[in-house]
Amino acid sequence: MRLHGFFRSGASHRVRIALELKGIEYTNSSYVLREGEQRSEAFLRLNPQGLVPALELDDGTVLTQSLAICDYLEEVHPEPPLLPQDPVRRAKVRAFAQAIACDTHPVQNLKILNRIEALTGSEEAATQWARQTIEDGLDACERLIEAEDGPFCFGDSVTLADICLVSQMGNARRFGADLRWPRLLAAEAACNELTAFQRAAPANQPDAS
Amino acid sequence: MRLHGFFRSGASHRVRIALELKGIEYTNSSYVLREGEQRSEAFLRLNPQGLVPALELDDGTVLTQSLAICDYLEEVHPEPPLLPQDPVRRAKVRAFAQAIACDTHPVQNLKILNRIEALTGSEEAATQWARQTIEDGLDACERLIEAEDGPFCFGDSVTLADICLVSQMGNARRFGADLRWPRLLAAEAACNELTAFQRAAPANQPDAS
Repeated sequence: MRLHGFFRSGASHRVRIALELKGIEYTNSSYVLREGEQRSEAFLRLNPQGLVPALELDDGTVLTQSLAICDYLEEVHPEPPLLPQDPVRRAKVRAFAQAIACDTHPVQNLKILNRIEALTGSEEAATQWARQTIEDGLDACERLIEAEDGPFCFGDSVTLADICLVSQMGNARRFGADLRWPRLLAAEAACNELTAFQRAAPANQPDAS
Repeated sequence: MRLHGFFRSGASHRVRIALELKGIEYTNSSYVLREGEQRSEAFLRLNPQGLVPALELDDGTVLTQSLAICDYLEEVHPEPPLLPQDPVRRAKVRAFAQAIACDTHPVQNLKILNRIEALTGSEEAATQWARQTIEDGLDACERLIEAEDGPFCFGDSVTLADICLVSQMGNARRFGADLRWPRLLAAEAACNELTAFQRAAPANQPDAS
């Protein structure tokens, strides 16, 4: 498999963690987002949405959207599982993941921040926008798991919730958010003990700068 | 089951379609979003994110996030299926659904439009923001399925992609988007022939105004 992504992209980061957790070998192709390489003709042929990541399978099939890719990986490489067995528990994990992957990250990605800067003429307004979006999103996430056992978001196994959390916490730090979430920080720390999370970390990618 | 939602909420609309397609009986509780009822204490006890929908099961369990709810319904009421059997096809359907449910709808929901209006002091700027977000999102969706057979988004069965499409097309009209998507319009028209989509339509809800 080949992962078309970027070291700092939160959505690419999610897929890297899932690939590492499942022990799937892959190669990287890097697209520098600030230079618009994800809107190049070559990349748009892979994903007309012009967003990383895209996962190219060995037969040339291209999958897009990080959560759809994680579900695919879960279906074809079920071990170790990224979701619990019980349907209600699965729905809780998915809801936490989507609170980040639907309601938080896409509202503060580079494309949106560029639009906010164009609208206001202020880079600081864009940074503030990102910070508020992340704080609102992670405030809700903290409450979603405050009654759950640790050390991870949902008990003693890593799930899709942790994958989304760890990638979002990186953005939280980058934009100077107030890290006021003890339960989320503890889950993140537990994840960062694991080799898969270390290998997938943005700073450890070949395209990191 | 009780669906806590609002007739005009795109995410509530998705869950209604899924419930209707699967023939699951449910009752409605309505929260008027423009009046902030989704941020009432009563609703925050159901969903600390303060977003509709929330699906309350008969045992009191509350599920949130429309796509997580659809996956739950798919797991406990598998017929008729909302996803194909093949993992690659499932991933394609999910990616289309997420192009709407992650990258489009949450960037133009009421909460975000209120923030844009506060930032710019202009209601027109917020409407423009919504329109551009929807046009960008559905431009990509049109390309994602241009090589797929109809009449629905992915062939001759309704999937999660159609559920997300139909709810988003309602917003496209509401915000005056340029409906320049022949393939999407055809899929929407095919869906609207079906009783389940008719019953789930915003205009046919008891709280419609």
